[in-house]
Amino acid sequence: MRAEILTIGDELLRGEIVDTNKSLLAERLLRFDVETRFQSSVCDDAGDMTDAFRRAAGRADVVLVSGGLGPTRDDITFEVLAKTFGRRLVRHEPSLEAIREFFARLGREMSPSNEKQALLPEGGEVLPNPVGTAPGCMLEAGGAVFFCLPGVPRELVRMLDAEVLPRLAARLRPAGRGVMRAVLLRTFGMGESTLEDELKDLAREEGVALGFRSAFPDNYLRPVVRAATEAEAAARLARVVEAIEKRLGPLIYGRDDETLEQALGALLVARGLTLGVAESCTGGLLAERISAVPGASRYFRGGVVAYANDAKRELLGVPETLLAAHGAVSAPVARAMAEGARERLGADLAVSTTGISGPDGGTPEKPVGLVFVGFADSKGSEAHEFLFPFDRARHRLVTSQVALDWVRRALLGETRVAPRWLRGRA
Amino acid sequence: MRAEILTIGDELLRGEIVDTNKSLLAERLLRFDVETRFQSSVCDDAGDMTDAFRRAAGRADVVLVSGGLGPTRDDITFEVLAKTFGRRLVRHEPSLEAIREFFARLGREMSPSNEKQALLPEGGEVLPNPVGTAPGCMLEAGGAVFFCLPGVPRELVRMLDAEVLPRLAARLRPAGRGVMRAVLLRTFGMGESTLEDELKDLAREEGVALGFRSAFPDNYLRPVVRAATEAEAAARLARVVEAIEKRLGPLIYGRDDETLEQALGALLVARGLTLGVAESCTGGLLAERISAVPGASRYFRGGVVAYANDAKRELLGVPETLLAAHGAVSAPVARAMAEGARERLGADLAVSTTGISGPDGGTPEKPVGLVFVGFADSKGSEAHEFLFPFDRARHRLVTSQVALDWVRRALLGETRVAPRWLRGRA
Repeated sequence: MRAEILTIGDELLRGEIVDTNKSLLAERLLRFDVETRFQSSVCDDAGDMTDAFRRAAGRADVVLVSGGLGPTRDDITFEVLAKTFGRRLVRHEPSLEAIREFFARLGREMSPSNEKQALLPEGGEVLPNPVGTAPGCMLEAGGAVFFCLPGVPRELVRMLDAEVLPRLAARLRPAGRGVMRAVLLRTFGMGESTLEDELKDLAREEGVALGFRSAFPDNYLRPVVRAATEAEAAARLARVVEAIEKRLGPLIYGRDDETLEQALGALLVARGLTLGVAESCTGGLLAERISAVPGASRYFRGGVVAYANDAKRELLGVPETLLAAHGAVSAPVARAMAEGARERLGADLAVSTTGISGPDGGTPEKPVGLVFVGFADSKGSEAHEFLFPFDRARHRLVTSQVALDWVRRALLGETRVAPRWLRGRA
Repeated sequence: MRAEILTIGDELLRGEIVDTNKSLLAERLLRFDVETRFQSSVCDDAGDMTDAFRRAAGRADVVLVSGGLGPTRDDITFEVLAKTFGRRLVRHEPSLEAIREFFARLGREMSPSNEKQALLPEGGEVLPNPVGTAPGCMLEAGGAVFFCLPGVPRELVRMLDAEVLPRLAARLRPAGRGVMRAVLLRTFGMGESTLEDELKDLAREEGVALGFRSAFPDNYLRPVVRAATEAEAAARLARVVEAIEKRLGPLIYGRDDETLEQALGALLVARGLTLGVAESCTGGLLAERISAVPGASRYFRGGVVAYANDAKRELLGVPETLLAAHGAVSAPVARAMAEGARERLGADLAVSTTGISGPDGGTPEKPVGLVFVGFADSKGSEAHEFLFPFDRARHRLVTSQVALDWVRRALLGETRVAPRWLRGRA
C-alpha cells in the first residue's frame, strides 16, 4: 500500500511553521507497515489543491490530507475535494450538532462560519473530532482513499489513532496479507548496527520483520508481525517483543510515544521516590525535560544549574579543594555535585552533569565532548566519564539522556550505565 | 517568481526526521520576495525523482532541491537530474580538488566513493560548499532554474545565503522590478493585529510593503522595499526600519536569525554584567535557553530550579512566612526568588518565574496560566503578574520569553515589561 501525505496551508509554504505533521503521519503509517511514497504541500488555492488531489489519487492508494478544515474562507479542503471528484457537498447533521455542543461546552456562541465545517463531500464517511470543531472525512475517490484531518497536530494525532489507523488496518487485511501488528520499542545506549547484529536472527521467523532506525540520541526498533488472525498476530508480537526484551534488558526504555522522561517519571511515582539534579554542561536541559512531564511535581524536587564554579561551591557545597585539584570537569566534582543536590534538595536520588559542550573551551587533556555524569543515592555516589563526538546542542541532549537513563536504570536495580560512549568509571 | 522546494531522502518519507529545510528555505526565499508555491518530498528513487523534477520544472520558475548529494549509492540527485533533462555528468576538477583538501584538513583518507560528488550535470554552475564535501549546482533546465543543495541543514543554510540568494536576487532584477531588499524584525510583547494597526501607514509609501507573521510567542515583521538601484533600496529600507524602530522601540529584539537569548547575551557581554535565574514553573527552560548560546559562561552564573517549596527556602532563602502568607505562586515569592538567586549566585541581575503551567494544579483564585515573573538588580526587586491562555508547553515557553525580555529591557534602560498578557505589578 502506497501512501501520500498532502498538507495544505499558506503558512506552510511561507515557512512560518515547521510542518511536523508530515513526519508524524509517516511514522504512524509505518507502524502499520504502510509506506509513504510522496509528501506534498500546497497553498490554500483551489487550482493547486485540485492538481494535488488528482496527482495523489493517480499515484497513491491512500492519501492523508491535513489542513483546510477550519471555519475561515481559506479553509476549502472539503469543497475542492468534492469538486475535484464530481461530488456535491452535503450537510452532515450529527457533525453540525457536535460543533454546536462543542461551543456550548465552552460557553461560547457558535459563529455562522462554523456551520461550513459540517458540509462534507457526498459519499464520505465522517471522522469525528473529539478535541476540536472540525470533523474529518474518509472518501474513496479517483482510485484512492482520502483521509482528511485537521492541521492542528493535537487534533490530527487523536483522530489518526482513533479513526484512520483502524480503518487502514481493516483495509490491509482483505488484501490477503492477514493481520499486521507492530510496536515501536525505544532504546538508548547501543549503536544501530550493534543492535541489528544482536537481533537479526529474530527476524528469520516467518511472519516477523524487524525495522531499525536512529532518532538521536536513541535508536528505535519496530518489530512487525503478520498472522492469519488478530489473536495469532497479538501472540506472535508478544513473543517477539519478549525475546527482544530478554536480549536487550534495560536498553529498552519505552514503547511508541513514551519519552525517557515519562518512563522515568512513572518509575519514580511507582517507587515513591524523589529526584534532584545538579547541572553544569546541560545548563538546565535536564531539569527542563524532567519538569516538562505533567505531574512532575510529585517526584521532582528541583535542580541547581551551577554554570559558574562559585555556584558549584555555594549552592551545591562542592569543596574548593576538589575544584582546584581536579577541575570542574572531573569525576570527583560530578560526584560532589550529585551528593550536594541530593542533600540540599532533600531528594532520594540525584544526578549531575559537568562537561565541555563546545564549540570552545576544550584543551588537549579535556577536549570538547568530555562529560562526567554523577549519581547519588542513600548508598553513596559514583560518576562515569563519557566522550561524545557531536556538537554543542547534541552534547547537551545526549548528556541529559545519559543522566535520565542512569536514574531509570538505578530504579530498575541495574548498576551500570549503558556502555555506549562510556570512557571510564570513578 | 514561483518557487518549488523539493527535498529528497528515504528518511524524510519514513518520518524519521522532521524536515526543517522546507520552512527554512521558504522563509529565506520570502525575504527576497520569492513565493514558494509547492513543496514536495520523494524517496531516493530515480523514477520518483524524475517525475518530481519534470513536474517542478513545469510549474515553477525556480526549484530548490535539497538532499541526495552525498557519497553513498542512495545519493543520486545529480545523476537523475542530468538524465531527466538529457545532460551528461561531467567531472568538475576544482570540486574534486576541494573534496580532497577537505579530507586532508581533517587528516583523513578520501574514500573513492567521494569522487562521485564531483560529477555534476553538464552546463551546471558549481556552488561551492565551504563546510562539507558535497558541492551544490545551479542548472537551467526544462524552463526552470534548479539549485541543488546538500540536505544537512548547516551546509544548506550556508550555501543558500552565500550562493543561491545572491543569484536569485540578480535574476529578479532584469525582470524590471528593480532591486528588492528586506529584513526580518523579531518582536515580542504585542499582538499581531495591534502591530499591524500601529504600522500600516508605513506601508503606504510607493515601493514599500510590510509583512506580518506570528511565530509563538513572537511576532515577526518583514519590511520589503523596491527601488531602481541597490543604493536606493538600501537607503529606503534603512528609512523604513528606522521609522518602525521609532514606533516600536524595545518591542523589537532582533533581526533575521537572532534569538532573544542571543540578543540578551550580546547585551550582557557589552555591559559586562552577569545573570542568574530562579525558576519554578519554567522548570529549567530559562537556564537552558540562556546556556544554549555558545559562550554563555561569560555572563551566565547559573540558576536554581526550585520546584518544591523546600528548595525555594533552602536554596534561595525564600522566607517560610512569605510562602505561608502568599503561597508559592505570588508576587512576593517571585521577588524573593529573584533576590535570592542574585545573592546566592553572585550575579548582577536575576530573574525568576513561579506559576501554574497546568494541565492540573489550578484553583479559582490561582488558575492555570497564572504566572509571576520577578526581577532583581542592585536597586531592588519587582514582580509582574501574567495570565496566559495557553497549554503547559506554551505557558513555559512564553514565561521564559517574558523573563528574558524583562532582563533585556532592563539593560536597555526600559523599566517596564511588555504589556501583553500583563495583569498587574507588585
